[in-house]
Amino acid sequence: MQESKIEHPNQSNLDQVKVILVGTSHPGNIGSVARAMKTMGLSQLILVDPQTEIDDKSVALAAGAADILKQAVIKPTLAQAIEDCGLVIGASARSRTLPWPMLDPRQTGLKLISEVPNYPVAVVFGRENSGLSNEELQQCQYHVCIPANPEYSSLNLAMAVQTICYEIRMAWLNQTTAVTSTETELQQYPSSAQMNGFFDHLENTLNDIGFIVKAHPGQIMSKLRRLYNRARPEEVELNILRGILTATQRGPYVEPQNKTPKD
Amino acid sequence: MQESKIEHPNQSNLDQVKVILVGTSHPGNIGSVARAMKTMGLSQLILVDPQTEIDDKSVALAAGAADILKQAVIKPTLAQAIEDCGLVIGASARSRTLPWPMLDPRQTGLKLISEVPNYPVAVVFGRENSGLSNEELQQCQYHVCIPANPEYSSLNLAMAVQTICYEIRMAWLNQTTAVTSTETELQQYPSSAQMNGFFDHLENTLNDIGFIVKAHPGQIMSKLRRLYNRARPEEVELNILRGILTATQRGPYVEPQNKTPKD
Repeated sequence: MQESKIEHPNQSNLDQVKVILVGTSHPGNIGSVARAMKTMGLSQLILVDPQTEIDDKSVALAAGAADILKQAVIKPTLAQAIEDCGLVIGASARSRTLPWPMLDPRQTGLKLISEVPNYPVAVVFGRENSGLSNEELQQCQYHVCIPANPEYSSLNLAMAVQTICYEIRMAWLNQTTAVTSTETELQQYPSSAQMNGFFDHLENTLNDIGFIVKAHPGQIMSKLRRLYNRARPEEVELNILRGILTATQRGPYVEPQNKTPKD
Repeated sequence: MQESKIEHPNQSNLDQVKVILVGTSHPGNIGSVARAMKTMGLSQLILVDPQTEIDDKSVALAAGAADILKQAVIKPTLAQAIEDCGLVIGASARSRTLPWPMLDPRQTGLKLISEVPNYPVAVVFGRENSGLSNEELQQCQYHVCIPANPEYSSLNLAMAVQTICYEIRMAWLNQTTAVTSTETELQQYPSSAQMNGFFDHLENTLNDIGFIVKAHPGQIMSKLRRLYNRARPEEVELNILRGILTATQRGPYVEPQNKTPKD
């Protein structure tokens, strides 16, 4: 029985959408982001390694959204911020050398809202000057790029947040029972914590088998993270991958004929 | 022959979209609006009766969009700003007592882009604290409301401009030959100047026939403006209306039987 799963837009769904700011430098931007979020009905703000305090300027620019600032959570790393999220979309410029599944803001809103009944989801914005690092972008399943004027694409951080949050709200308002919760859409994807568990397992395994030296991993792990995050394995598939790793670590396969005969 | 009317997005179309700010008080907002516009490829900024100068703060917040500020045009009234526009959409809160055709930002982008090949179009934003007056809203054919959180719907002016300009750009990027320039869409609508010519003609006529006293017009003209702007007559229809006014002014109809017989 899954009648009335989402008959009407459900505020609790918007409350499961995290807006994550990484390495923000200007306190005013944090305030403006809070205001932008609240006007679109979002409330979960996470600051990763902020380069400034939330100060009077933040509060002034938040205007009526000071409550969002007050309940903002600070995390040292992106990995910790997205631990419980089943879907993470990172803001990126289109010209990245990193090839990755790209969404526009509209697709981002639809994607986040279609999956938020299943687990928390997140949209991640980088530093004012340098955006997200490649290492951070590789922790996202999708990248979002606002299709700005190629001759001047420099949106202010809070403007970018406003635009994405607007599309999240539009998707949320426009959702109908028809759009949501068919069997295929209820596909379970692993959380970021599960993915990281897998990556640790993978790295240990590659180390065990001498494929990489843990102290000098080079680009291998980063390339593998990129591959698997892009592939976005389902939970079942991830279990299979981990099973393979466990089997690999168990050591070399022993052919039955090499066993000491019992009799 | 109207092949290749719009095969690809045409920058000159974006250059025919005017962003009009009425009675803006904060110089920083004017700068932020310029930046928001330029990131979305728009360039025509008009300030109606601004309550501040364009100052250093404006330029600082415009960042790389100082050129938009430099070429901004100042007009004393909204009527003068929209004189040559065939379509004017005004930003409004949903709760207005004024019933009017409402669009959301997406419909606004599509509407502006579908008509901009025919004439200049405009989107109008009001004062930071009080928005557009009813008299100003009545000069628009449509109103646009950003579907914000009803508990906190207070978007900053530049955020509102960013959101609408984003939808204009999305509509412009997504346009295809299929969407544009069917015969029906090439319908010609009168410019605001033509509409004002009609309203003057109407007022004079109503005065001539003693329906209103010009010195004390009361609410009549304002209600009629509202009606006709909402109805959005086509050029052909407006010609008919003006024909009626001219006929009305010509004086009372004389029945044929009252004419002196010729023989």
